[in-house]
Amino acid sequence: MSEDKDRGITIKKEDDMPEWYEQVVLKGELADFSPVSGFMIIRPNGYSIWQKIQDEFNLTLKKYKVQNAYFPLLIPESFFKREAEHAEGFAPELAWVNRKSEDAEKLAIRPTSETIMYDAYSKWVRSWRDLPLRLNQWCNVLRWEVSDVKLFLRSREFLWQEGHCVYESEEECEKETLEILDEYQNLAKNILAIPSITGTKTEKEKFPGAKTTYTFESLMPDGKALQMGTSHNLGQGFAKSFEISYLDKNEKKAIPWQNSWGFSTRMLGAMVMMHADDKGLIIPPNAAENKVVIVPIVFKGKSDEPDKVAKKLESTLKEFNPILDDREEVTPGWKFNEWEMKGVPLRIEIGPRDVEKDQCVIVRRDTGKKEFVPLKDITKEINKTLETMQNDMFKKADKEMKDNIVEVSNFSEFEDAIKDKKMAKTLHCGETACETQIQEKTTATSRCIPFKETADGKCVHCSKPAKVVIYFSRNY
Amino acid sequence: MSEDKDRGITIKKEDDMPEWYEQVVLKGELADFSPVSGFMIIRPNGYSIWQKIQDEFNLTLKKYKVQNAYFPLLIPESFFKREAEHAEGFAPELAWVNRKSEDAEKLAIRPTSETIMYDAYSKWVRSWRDLPLRLNQWCNVLRWEVSDVKLFLRSREFLWQEGHCVYESEEECEKETLEILDEYQNLAKNILAIPSITGTKTEKEKFPGAKTTYTFESLMPDGKALQMGTSHNLGQGFAKSFEISYLDKNEKKAIPWQNSWGFSTRMLGAMVMMHADDKGLIIPPNAAENKVVIVPIVFKGKSDEPDKVAKKLESTLKEFNPILDDREEVTPGWKFNEWEMKGVPLRIEIGPRDVEKDQCVIVRRDTGKKEFVPLKDITKEINKTLETMQNDMFKKADKEMKDNIVEVSNFSEFEDAIKDKKMAKTLHCGETACETQIQEKTTATSRCIPFKETADGKCVHCSKPAKVVIYFSRNY
Repeated sequence: MSEDKDRGITIKKEDDMPEWYEQVVLKGELADFSPVSGFMIIRPNGYSIWQKIQDEFNLTLKKYKVQNAYFPLLIPESFFKREAEHAEGFAPELAWVNRKSEDAEKLAIRPTSETIMYDAYSKWVRSWRDLPLRLNQWCNVLRWEVSDVKLFLRSREFLWQEGHCVYESEEECEKETLEILDEYQNLAKNILAIPSITGTKTEKEKFPGAKTTYTFESLMPDGKALQMGTSHNLGQGFAKSFEISYLDKNEKKAIPWQNSWGFSTRMLGAMVMMHADDKGLIIPPNAAENKVVIVPIVFKGKSDEPDKVAKKLESTLKEFNPILDDREEVTPGWKFNEWEMKGVPLRIEIGPRDVEKDQCVIVRRDTGKKEFVPLKDITKEINKTLETMQNDMFKKADKEMKDNIVEVSNFSEFEDAIKDKKMAKTLHCGETACETQIQEKTTATSRCIPFKETADGKCVHCSKPAKVVIYFSRNY
Repeated sequence: MSEDKDRGITIKKEDDMPEWYEQVVLKGELADFSPVSGFMIIRPNGYSIWQKIQDEFNLTLKKYKVQNAYFPLLIPESFFKREAEHAEGFAPELAWVNRKSEDAEKLAIRPTSETIMYDAYSKWVRSWRDLPLRLNQWCNVLRWEVSDVKLFLRSREFLWQEGHCVYESEEECEKETLEILDEYQNLAKNILAIPSITGTKTEKEKFPGAKTTYTFESLMPDGKALQMGTSHNLGQGFAKSFEISYLDKNEKKAIPWQNSWGFSTRMLGAMVMMHADDKGLIIPPNAAENKVVIVPIVFKGKSDEPDKVAKKLESTLKEFNPILDDREEVTPGWKFNEWEMKGVPLRIEIGPRDVEKDQCVIVRRDTGKKEFVPLKDITKEINKTLETMQNDMFKKADKEMKDNIVEVSNFSEFEDAIKDKKMAKTLHCGETACETQIQEKTTATSRCIPFKETADGKCVHCSKPAKVVIYFSRNY
């Protein structure tokens, strides 16, 4: 589409990560800018990854007996006001719809759907027999927070899933809130090969209206954390505000417990930053729509046997949804570059000599490693290589993430770590004022309080007795 | 959830179809009203049917090499103005977003996405190698036309798919525009057991900005047509307005041809009206998430063998996603009523005597027909019965639809047909003024001009020489 010299990624990941990132996403055709400021277009290469994530997570939803549903895009102003913290938290981000005087009240495009869903829940939940009520929706949401869009990472509109469940008991609610967090972490690993840490958000960082917010976060190569998704134990706050109650087994009126949890298309941004390289995208095998590209290597005027074998391979390898690139107007080298830029996990090359030997060459996108494979073993070998590649990508990313987390025990070390583009693991007093000061001094924010770790010592900043182990870093 | 006496459908289909329809949808828990005027909630029972439709149609998209993508929710005012007819057609239905002075221009929530997609297409399409370009999106759209929502049939927001393709040749464009229409008709038949007629819309009824609009319509039992979906040949109009052009194989600049096509959650409304009865929903087997409900019939103090067999059956019949209703607090009769109201295709009853005989009873929701089936044959028998039921439902609906279409040759017969809640098939001069007069006199609108029929005679209304065979009826 553009001139040849502009086709490749022209900036190195380590030289200018934001510019490199934008090029990789645009040239890999995952997404594009929209003429509407703050919005983005998700192109087929990106959307197919989102569909893989959806398919996989729909199975998880089934396991937890969560059903999909769909609630209205527009939410009345009065709904936001019912839960004070929630209202305050989202107020700056709302986009209002303007339909003259015909409407009784102002309507906002949903930034999240707690309020409109719980209004319905208050009607649907009557008896203990109606619980647990577990619904999810896949939808678009709008948060008017930014104007400088970062593709996938920050845009006014994004796609996500939001699960909203109601339980009889506090225990059941808390248990599933945490189980979903685990499922999220596994999903990121199994599909996108992304490692993450999990934990609890501080009071300052929790979701407006939640009792407790749990999060899973990954650490990007530039030392900035990316919040991948959150699972909120809402306690009974929303139930009280929205008058959700039920008759329990003893015919007594009771207030239920609720959670909500979501992840979004942001995850695709993490995938890019984590895995892509100076040649472009690297799509983890389990996220790739086309797992293989087949490139026959034919010399002008010579035998077209490689073309024939490639065509046959295309049908043999159907389960991998292969791309057969038999274009005549571009060279094999040009094709290699293109498919590397687009991140197809495996490339199969077939030249005249390979045809003679009944073999082909498999090249891994992540390592560039070449392997000669007898054609008769091809399916088995591709399966094996894809599995190995998925595991290797995760292991590599996991190691990089862990290498970028440093334990610090005083504020000078803390500041050095942040300056050095690391995530700091440290001790904290747990007070919001102190947390705010740390942010003002270093631009780092608290990411999460890991589970099951004991805080033994003093706060890294104010030296008061520590209450929590905590991660701090800059963030997206 | 409500009192027992209100649980069933309290109004007969033939007595008051609109009221009956609303009860069936609400009590079948397909959908619910939203506190926001003109909007609706799609509940899990309804959404699961939409998901079946999505899954099936995604296979069709693959067949046609159409890829899924996602474009922004908000569209700048200037985009609408580029195609004059399109702008005029949608102007009354737009909802504008109000974000003070920070935005350069007004933004509307998408009523359809031609404009925002084709703006991107003008950037992406450069060469004949980029064609055909075939994209689809599954999304929500907003049309502010109504305030009295009719669940699924008429609401300000609805879910749909919109396909938008770009071709080098007029022939290819026209061919696929019509092929998609066929696919739509098959989808409605194969999943929802809904019969339909297909044809061309008149100038008056075509999509704003289209060259030709093709439609598939079904006729509801109350004699009103329901437009199920449309496929538009857009010609080169949008391509010119949005400056989409490409270099052809001879390196000459050329204007491409485009189509767009969509169907929506309205289809679910057709399914209800067409098939449901005075007991409630009847979900066609291929649309049902749970194809079977198992009800053990246990008498107090007697053997619990039926319960055990029912449990075993639940796992044997896993592929049908069965519901096992082993609640103790309600009677079998109460359960029968509930699952009939919710439209589960087959009910399996197991009583003590069935256990003795190693059999169970299968009851079809559509006919109420009971069949004793040996337990060892159950899977085979259910498969067979579901298939028969799907076919029977289609045949019954198809016969009803055809019985409600009458051929008329003069205006008095025409008026009688419309008064008699029929669809009239007749001859027409093809002029918009005449068509408008018919509508003013009878409230009937032209539905479509069937393919391949010759108009031989005079216009039913103005008696000028007829140009087309045409269907007229009232409509949703």
